[in-house]
Amino acid sequence: MNERLILITNDDGFDSKGLAAAVEAARGLGRIVVVAPEKMQSGMSQAITMYRPLFLRRVREEEGLEVYAFSGTPVDCVKMAFDYLLRDERVDLVISGINHGSNSAVNVLYSGTMGAAIEGSFYGCPAVGLSLDDHAADADFEASVIWGRRIVEQVLAGGVELPLCLNVNVPAGKPETVRGLRLCRQNRGFWREEFFRHEDPRGREYFWLTGEFVNGEPEAEDTDEWALRNGYVSVVPVQVDLTDYRQLERLRGVLR
Amino acid sequence: MNERLILITNDDGFDSKGLAAAVEAARGLGRIVVVAPEKMQSGMSQAITMYRPLFLRRVREEEGLEVYAFSGTPVDCVKMAFDYLLRDERVDLVISGINHGSNSAVNVLYSGTMGAAIEGSFYGCPAVGLSLDDHAADADFEASVIWGRRIVEQVLAGGVELPLCLNVNVPAGKPETVRGLRLCRQNRGFWREEFFRHEDPRGREYFWLTGEFVNGEPEAEDTDEWALRNGYVSVVPVQVDLTDYRQLERLRGVLR
Repeated sequence: MNERLILITNDDGFDSKGLAAAVEAARGLGRIVVVAPEKMQSGMSQAITMYRPLFLRRVREEEGLEVYAFSGTPVDCVKMAFDYLLRDERVDLVISGINHGSNSAVNVLYSGTMGAAIEGSFYGCPAVGLSLDDHAADADFEASVIWGRRIVEQVLAGGVELPLCLNVNVPAGKPETVRGLRLCRQNRGFWREEFFRHEDPRGREYFWLTGEFVNGEPEAEDTDEWALRNGYVSVVPVQVDLTDYRQLERLRGVLR
Repeated sequence: MNERLILITNDDGFDSKGLAAAVEAARGLGRIVVVAPEKMQSGMSQAITMYRPLFLRRVREEEGLEVYAFSGTPVDCVKMAFDYLLRDERVDLVISGINHGSNSAVNVLYSGTMGAAIEGSFYGCPAVGLSLDDHAADADFEASVIWGRRIVEQVLAGGVELPLCLNVNVPAGKPETVRGLRLCRQNRGFWREEFFRHEDPRGREYFWLTGEFVNGEPEAEDTDEWALRNGYVSVVPVQVDLTDYRQLERLRGVLR
């Protein structure tokens, strides 16, 4: 029997609402194994745990679904799955998410969700990072489940070339308000941060990181930011060669 | 007076040998401000701290040098410097390192050193990540200081276009064994991990992540891995648009 095997992870933790939504999006498409962080790992990027031991916990098993919590980062979870738990099996797809909050534009770099998706794509199967552009505690994941499932089915249907990693962001709101899917490039922009300074009861100062995303090209209609702002599901295929080829040529006269 | 201002950070911590080496490489080129992690942050990628307060500590000040330790990630350190400590000043250059161990190839993605360098390049000045391809506790940083300084001087001399972020890796060994500098592209490859499984004295299992880098193109002479393996200082200019443009075209027929 050639039942498909789907690995699901995320950065919000094994017991988050978004993880349940990802399981819902994949339900029935194959056997599902969840290996997700024991605790919230938002903003963990592609971090790995090098100098601490890690603990794996089998949370539960039901028909077609096994759930593990792992004490590491999202990328650690992917490695634990491929290099230990599932090392003798063929994984057909990795889903990371559904993240509570968008990972469009430069957020792909900081996102633990996308860190895990990228890592998954290193293991010879397609990987899909799913995020919902809604930070509210009562965010409605329905549209992201529907679109996540649709995209996952299209990827599994074949015809994609590897490596494949998708950064999928779904706008907030009801499914019927989504205007469709747009293949996009990553928007250029950056975060300008502020540190909120406070003092603890003993007078020791501490800081909270906060900030605001600055869209560097608000008019460009081929970016993920534009798609999301205009009610579309944005899909950016992601690759990991960071080489700046334009600079590579320019610098030949400068560095020696 | 237009004295230059140089920000130095790293991922090995404010009191590491490599940080002292970076300060040595930059000494005399301007006023130096160090904002570096309070504790070791290797493998932290571009992680940011979203849900914990952060603590800043002024460690010491001497002629032309101020040193701060910050309780966050390398990227948090860069943000703390630009968005708080130095927010009214013009920073001319960011140096991250000198890392104890190379950050060539796909390691750029996991590296806290390079996470900080990339973040620095978002703030309108050149950023240089420096790493030494030697993990030994008694690693000799002399060659990396010499080449780091040379590259930093060439970047500061002008003629570079922004954004500019360099991933510089220096081979292990004495300065006289270095064969020169090569501008390279990022090598394709990946890590295959193993998890060492043990049990603690109470029978609870735990895992240590370990692994081996697999060079996906050992024969390609234009990559950073090749340069390092052959005794050259590798310099890869880095950019952050992860869009896979080839897939973007291909997927137009697949996803809708």
